[in-house]
Amino acid sequence: MNRRTFARRALAALGALQLGRPVVAQAARGTASGLVPAPAGPLGELPELAAQDLRVDGERLIRTLEALHAFGRTPEGGISRVAFSDADRQARAYVAGLLEEAGFESHVDLASNLVASKAGSEDLNPLMMGSHLDSVPEGGNFDGQVGSMGAVEVVRTLADAGHTTRHPLEVVFFVNEEAGKTGSRALSGEVERFELALMTPSGLTIGEGIRANGGDPDRLSEARIEAGRVAAFLELHVEQGGVLDRGGIDIGVVEGIVGIRRWEITVEGFANHAGTTPMPDRRDALVAAARLVDAVNRVALEMEGTHVATVGRIQAEPGAPNVIPGRVTASLEIRDLAMEKIDRVFEAISARADDIAADLGVTIGFEPFYLSRAAPTDPRIRDMVAAAAADLELDALRMPSGAGHDAQSIAQFAPIGMIFVPSVDGISHSPREYSRPGQIAAGADVLLGTLLRLDREWD
Amino acid sequence: MNRRTFARRALAALGALQLGRPVVAQAARGTASGLVPAPAGPLGELPELAAQDLRVDGERLIRTLEALHAFGRTPEGGISRVAFSDADRQARAYVAGLLEEAGFESHVDLASNLVASKAGSEDLNPLMMGSHLDSVPEGGNFDGQVGSMGAVEVVRTLADAGHTTRHPLEVVFFVNEEAGKTGSRALSGEVERFELALMTPSGLTIGEGIRANGGDPDRLSEARIEAGRVAAFLELHVEQGGVLDRGGIDIGVVEGIVGIRRWEITVEGFANHAGTTPMPDRRDALVAAARLVDAVNRVALEMEGTHVATVGRIQAEPGAPNVIPGRVTASLEIRDLAMEKIDRVFEAISARADDIAADLGVTIGFEPFYLSRAAPTDPRIRDMVAAAAADLELDALRMPSGAGHDAQSIAQFAPIGMIFVPSVDGISHSPREYSRPGQIAAGADVLLGTLLRLDREWD
Repeated sequence: MNRRTFARRALAALGALQLGRPVVAQAARGTASGLVPAPAGPLGELPELAAQDLRVDGERLIRTLEALHAFGRTPEGGISRVAFSDADRQARAYVAGLLEEAGFESHVDLASNLVASKAGSEDLNPLMMGSHLDSVPEGGNFDGQVGSMGAVEVVRTLADAGHTTRHPLEVVFFVNEEAGKTGSRALSGEVERFELALMTPSGLTIGEGIRANGGDPDRLSEARIEAGRVAAFLELHVEQGGVLDRGGIDIGVVEGIVGIRRWEITVEGFANHAGTTPMPDRRDALVAAARLVDAVNRVALEMEGTHVATVGRIQAEPGAPNVIPGRVTASLEIRDLAMEKIDRVFEAISARADDIAADLGVTIGFEPFYLSRAAPTDPRIRDMVAAAAADLELDALRMPSGAGHDAQSIAQFAPIGMIFVPSVDGISHSPREYSRPGQIAAGADVLLGTLLRLDREWD
Repeated sequence: MNRRTFARRALAALGALQLGRPVVAQAARGTASGLVPAPAGPLGELPELAAQDLRVDGERLIRTLEALHAFGRTPEGGISRVAFSDADRQARAYVAGLLEEAGFESHVDLASNLVASKAGSEDLNPLMMGSHLDSVPEGGNFDGQVGSMGAVEVVRTLADAGHTTRHPLEVVFFVNEEAGKTGSRALSGEVERFELALMTPSGLTIGEGIRANGGDPDRLSEARIEAGRVAAFLELHVEQGGVLDRGGIDIGVVEGIVGIRRWEITVEGFANHAGTTPMPDRRDALVAAARLVDAVNRVALEMEGTHVATVGRIQAEPGAPNVIPGRVTASLEIRDLAMEKIDRVFEAISARADDIAADLGVTIGFEPFYLSRAAPTDPRIRDMVAAAAADLELDALRMPSGAGHDAQSIAQFAPIGMIFVPSVDGISHSPREYSRPGQIAAGADVLLGTLLRLDREWD
């Protein structure tokens, strides 16, 4: 972003706010719409223009992000705020307070998501925004938190401006994103019974954690939201990759959350004495696996597109320096926005595997063990995000999200939009994770702009 | 081996034995030489001719091998006779009894090697034979045992024939070959103090095991044998590789035990999110390691010689399917009879590593962590082994031993010779380890023939 432009437009926004003097709907409660009708018709014209020029308070946003860091800060300057921990519950209490101040009513749903809502001026389905407050162990200060505090800042900005949206607003802080997207997947009805027994880094199982948070794991199925009941969902998030940062681009217009397939690779050769087996007589499973890892990389690099393919884990058995590996297991992961593209990349890799197996006298098998379907964002919302960025004279890039997000669960029952801000050096899930204050504020402004467009144009 | 030839020669040997009627030196005790002078001069001529035609009793040899299997037999038909276990001590007792029967006196030395000795007819340094009785956990019935029972059979054959050698004879059963070559390395003074505290699969430390066997770990340094005190050492062993079996060859004339160098390979790239990091922006340590593993194999295959190079162990960190590996550690092992050749192979691999590191933006380091110097066999003894095989009309091949053996420790203070018999399919350290009875008997005959040549020609 051009900093001068940002400052100029921020000043313009301040002027607009003072001109607008909109009504503040502080008494609104509940998600039912129509409690507080907004000025409409000719009287509404001036506030509408003002809303278009609304800008978040970037400094306040950064202050709330910094205040949030108190909950779970580590000596390294990062955050350990795993879901269901005391630090996580404290962060939720802090955020609930901020939203109550802004005229929202907060409650904990059956999945123990923290939900804050405010009525709109018309009888419409709600517009939803949100992200997550939990972190990975020894994580950073931005993942989930930028989107959470961005949504809070948008709401506070609207409250300060006295602007009531046509749609009811809901801000959701999804529980346990990092260890299973439990909260958002409960809303799409995807949480399986067995998951409740899974241990989390908090020391509580997911079921115990939901209960400790005030939810009810026994009634999780009732947390499900049916398709058509939410007008749209928006999530602001740090990119967690280096594309925007390297390109010097402020805003990512997310085209969707990529699909993921994972396979367990098994290479079977023949274990033998590394001293007594001449080179030509070997059926070395690790040499075959090595050629396959190289082939995965080359295939992925050579095919056109934004797909990625990764071997992240490998084990050679028996695994001693003096034994030729007889068996190697490894993971293969392929991601792309289009599931068919994932299949095409896999087919190319699989063909190379056949050649390698034949050359080296080994067998190579692929066993699928994970599937996460791609979740495209709504094309109309993409255009609104791009338009909101253009209004702010921000550079924007349409791009896939390589990482998973709560939004992909919400996409099961509502149109979604996502906004990325740059991660410096693409670092994430690390205390070294960082996004610049100006870019965070710009992201929140795009979130605000998109929300207001949705509110105006969408029924 | 041509079986008809074997049978014919065995009959001839029986005839020779009856003709020879040599004196049996049953009363001989101790390693001091000269207690029982053998017939010499014209009187010795007939027994000498008879000794040349002596053949072991192949059936008896196989029976003793089978009897030995009782000590530590596993349900899979293999052996778990780890050093210092009850099964190991029982096997030692059985073997000591056989040797006492053959007129040898047995004792346990300070390292708890089982040593059986018999005086020769002249005041010479002893000729030593031996191998080990212990196995790896879940091992096979032939590794160490063929050489041990082969030496016993040679001694019994000499006793039956009433043949007293010029040199004193010593048969040594080295303790704990499989978990550190402790017994043979104690004789060469190579056991380090810290090794005594190492735990073995028996549940005893090496020090505790030596004491349980009747040795004295506190006086281990006194077990050392000085150079020049042993005339020569012979070891019969299964090849533990497939060279002889594939070639249909009966006898390996071992040129030496290969030297071994091992390095810890460390590849440092950059760990990153596998979903958000585009393919061209990666510094994937595992892709680099994979290319290196492939390069190790290709370099070793392309260079002339019998060297081998192996990557047996690999670990990618952090090791999750959804994280690009930032660090990979792996082992590299190179073996050859010539240490300079090992260095040349390593240099070629190292040059390839430099190219790979530059191509992929990673660093690749090699840290040496193990060195075992090559132990060539004595060229004169090689010729005697080959001549003994030729006498028996056996096919023989000069070859390195890729595996380590007790003989390599003994080479530190005495000339050594080694004889290999085929391992079917080259399998070793497995219940599937197998060597054919006829080939085992042929190996023992070559051991006998070599011993008698040494006894005649060596002072």
